[in-house]
Amino acid sequence: MTGPAPLAVSLGDPAGIGPEVLARAWARREAEQLPPFYAIGDRRALAAVWDGPIETLEDPTQALAAFPHALPLVQVDDPGDIMPGQPNLAGARCALDSLELGVGLARGGMASGLVTGPVSKAQLYQIGFNYPGQTEFVAERCGVSAVRAVMMLAGPSLRTVPLTVHVPLADVPRHITRELIITRARIVARALVRDFGIARPRLAVAGLNPHAGEKATLGREEAEIIAPAIAELIAEGLDIIGPLAADTMFHPPARAQYDAALCMYHDQALIPLKTLHFDDGVNTTLGLPIVRTSPDHGTAFNIAGTGTATPMAMVAAIRLAGQCAARRLAMPGQAAA
Amino acid sequence: MTGPAPLAVSLGDPAGIGPEVLARAWARREAEQLPPFYAIGDRRALAAVWDGPIETLEDPTQALAAFPHALPLVQVDDPGDIMPGQPNLAGARCALDSLELGVGLARGGMASGLVTGPVSKAQLYQIGFNYPGQTEFVAERCGVSAVRAVMMLAGPSLRTVPLTVHVPLADVPRHITRELIITRARIVARALVRDFGIARPRLAVAGLNPHAGEKATLGREEAEIIAPAIAELIAEGLDIIGPLAADTMFHPPARAQYDAALCMYHDQALIPLKTLHFDDGVNTTLGLPIVRTSPDHGTAFNIAGTGTATPMAMVAAIRLAGQCAARRLAMPGQAAA
Repeated sequence: MTGPAPLAVSLGDPAGIGPEVLARAWARREAEQLPPFYAIGDRRALAAVWDGPIETLEDPTQALAAFPHALPLVQVDDPGDIMPGQPNLAGARCALDSLELGVGLARGGMASGLVTGPVSKAQLYQIGFNYPGQTEFVAERCGVSAVRAVMMLAGPSLRTVPLTVHVPLADVPRHITRELIITRARIVARALVRDFGIARPRLAVAGLNPHAGEKATLGREEAEIIAPAIAELIAEGLDIIGPLAADTMFHPPARAQYDAALCMYHDQALIPLKTLHFDDGVNTTLGLPIVRTSPDHGTAFNIAGTGTATPMAMVAAIRLAGQCAARRLAMPGQAAA
Repeated sequence: MTGPAPLAVSLGDPAGIGPEVLARAWARREAEQLPPFYAIGDRRALAAVWDGPIETLEDPTQALAAFPHALPLVQVDDPGDIMPGQPNLAGARCALDSLELGVGLARGGMASGLVTGPVSKAQLYQIGFNYPGQTEFVAERCGVSAVRAVMMLAGPSLRTVPLTVHVPLADVPRHITRELIITRARIVARALVRDFGIARPRLAVAGLNPHAGEKATLGREEAEIIAPAIAELIAEGLDIIGPLAADTMFHPPARAQYDAALCMYHDQALIPLKTLHFDDGVNTTLGLPIVRTSPDHGTAFNIAGTGTATPMAMVAAIRLAGQCAARRLAMPGQAAA
């Protein structure tokens, strides 16, 4: 193997759109100037939705040689016949095996980063998977506590970090703590330097309540939790503003004031991101020893196999993973920061 | 007076940007093809930020004759010297008087609709105002209960209706009831016909929780409250879909599926609206006997008098009020619906 290791891409649920969007991303590898990558998953699931060349690898070290003329594939245990759009438990096992192998290969240096295709949590839960999502699974396999594995959604004009994710809205306020904001903000700032090449990152923090609490008349979390956390981070030297009214921080001039927005809950972070970047948003996990990105869409079982899924989010996820991996290789001393 | 009555525009806080954005909207009356309107407020506050022609009216019936050559003004009690950017209690009284007079003139038919300029709630509270905002004040003066006066935010590509507005996020879930959704959806559907000229309006309802509760695993409000409300509305004949995951309902193809989105809380409705339409969003109150709109921005004391405030939201608010008023005049039988 010459040069840095390629990226590994787990195909996700073999009945979802993961296989086809990766195949189509490979087909655009030159037009999009994508870094080399190999797939991890099931060959038949790929062949069912794509008639391009696939080269099954004995070993990931063969991927770089194969990449120019075929989509390199590391086969996991054959899940049997998979019909696009019809998930089953064998497919869920295939998705989980692919993910686990991908983490292992990235941790072992056989991949410079991991891109994870979309899985069905409903399916995974039926085979005993008990994590809120792939992110938490990857974090645990990397020996990183969930609180320190930070989800960021990245699009061309906006990056957001939801401080809470898959919790009911009613439970959000009690999850917001000073410690959580401080821990996550530090990790985000470090990752913006290390993975995104931003020398002096600027963070913005959203309020929880309408108008960021309007001087504590519409909620006290801003005054009692968020503002003190920001003050502590400023004292540490971070360039960070807030709490900002969430509704007025995502139009173009507001976005120009920061490199990443820390948001208090799922929809506060995801609404602006997907409103602006529905087709090319990337989910990336900050704070891990490995680079990990994911296209910001689901399995889309309803359109799997129809050839209509756009590969642009997968393309964006591969591109971002390649960029982050290159920056880590260029600054190896910071890789463990 | 010939033809339909002009619109009335209350200037809002005289130290805010209300006077200057209205003056600048008047200056663009021909380029923007705005319907005739007159201001209600203080002449000196206008003259302090604008050197164009102002014609103080003895009576609103003179407004149509004045409008082509001067900004017509109905003077309220003189608040004394007002410095742009420096709100005081006399200014707050002037703002409240202007609002109250505007409602009265619109109710009495001396204005075909009311556009309300931005006020400072912090200032108003100091003079005894005890409404959550102008909307609730206008509703009460119109004899409409707060639950039936429905705030809609309207931009060129999106209309959203927040079911709850100025309540702390932690309190939102207990405000969401089946009755509230049903009552508001009916009013929105009726207003889309009557005021917006949409013969068969299509509504979409957002979920409260991430992924609209993901089959009740991330919150039960969708299953227990929102979906039953929607089922009841469908049974009444409304064209209404949901509960939808809030993060995936605001990109362009999703927006094309509905005429208005009912949202569960302030930021869920306001984030997408202001992300897309920061400078030209209009706040309009549905369900009132009068037409009422407002530019979707605040007093912006920090830039008042500097000449930098864009009048485009005021222009949009005047245009929308004019359109709604014209539709009501064309269908007078529905005006009280």
